[in-house]
Amino acid sequence: MDKKDKLRRLKNIEGHIRGIQRMVESDEYCIDLIRQIQAVQGALSKVSAKILNEHLHSCLITAVRGEDPDERERVLREIAEVYEMASKV
Amino acid sequence: MDKKDKLRRLKNIEGHIRGIQRMVESDEYCIDLIRQIQAVQGALSKVSAKILNEHLHSCLITAVRGEDPDERERVLREIAEVYEMASKV
Amino acid sequence: MDKKDKLRRLKNIEGHIRGIQRMVESDEYCIDLIRQIQAVQGALSKVSAKILNEHLHSCLITAVRGEDPDERERVLREIAEVYEMASKV
Amino acid sequence: MDKKDKLRRLKNIEGHIRGIQRMVESDEYCIDLIRQIQAVQGALSKVSAKILNEHLHSCLITAVRGEDPDERERVLREIAEVYEMASKV
Repeated sequence: MDKKDKLRRLKNIEGHIRGIQRMVESDEYCIDLIRQIQAVQGALSKVSAKILNEHLHSCLITAVRGEDPDERERVLREIAEVYEMASKV
Repeated sequence: MDKKDKLRRLKNIEGHIRGIQRMVESDEYCIDLIRQIQAVQGALSKVSAKILNEHLHSCLITAVRGEDPDERERVLREIAEVYEMASKV
Repeated sequence: MDKKDKLRRLKNIEGHIRGIQRMVESDEYCIDLIRQIQAVQGALSKVSAKILNEHLHSCLITAVRGEDPDERERVLREIAEVYEMASKV
Repeated sequence: MDKKDKLRRLKNIEGHIRGIQRMVESDEYCIDLIRQIQAVQGALSKVSAKILNEHLHSCLITAVRGEDPDERERVLREIAEVYEMASKV
């Protein structure tokens, strides 16, 4: 996923959030609001997974092949952390 | 949570998404992007839980006390559905 | 979902967990372990959604139609709480 | 986390599941069942994050430093997949 694709997806998500604001303003049905919010959360999970994939194929490879054990450890720990966090949000 | 509070939260989330776009544009570190996305997902879960709470205290009560069994069934089924969905997004 | 069905599902999940223990004992591939754990989590979400659905059709209806406002408030609050929790586990 | 620690955690989770079965058998309150199920899901997320962390520090390092680009690609793709899946279960 290149930069353009990421920005396009985030623009869409921003538009989706504004759509939900309009739904709130016109007092639309609560359950429809919740469903739209859940759709946005799904779209965010997708962007996030794509960014992680990119990270694995660039920074991670560099760090693992590099000479600095602290840097490598930091990069591995960060991936473990966002994975743990992902199961919670 | 009244309408104003919901709109304020959604406005903040929209601003947060725009902040993430700027981070993408200036090539910020992937893991920082992911963490910001996870923060937005958490904020959305919170809004969603608040809307559900409101729904339980209004529409649900009306439907359960009302005379129409189909309407009641629909409202209960919707809550079960968004709950099931919540564990997946 | 009656009691028997719930017990059957939970028995299956218990067997699944024991299967994962055997996989750990025979040093199976980490990613396969993780996938099995994710499958168990999905099965648990399903049982949980079914129990909530049952709860909505029994206790909730009784509480909302009952005379005790504190009891009603408690039942509604609990549902909001498990919903919020569901988006996090 | 060594093998023993993983097995101990999975044994605890198995015991927790059996406890939930007993709660179903004695018709305990639905919301208490749901909370216990959510606690098990949280414990599973923790084991899963620990296994991933271990995987990153062993198989991943071997694959990234190895000579086989297909093997490396496979290992990176698997991590991206379980991450995407984690946000959904």
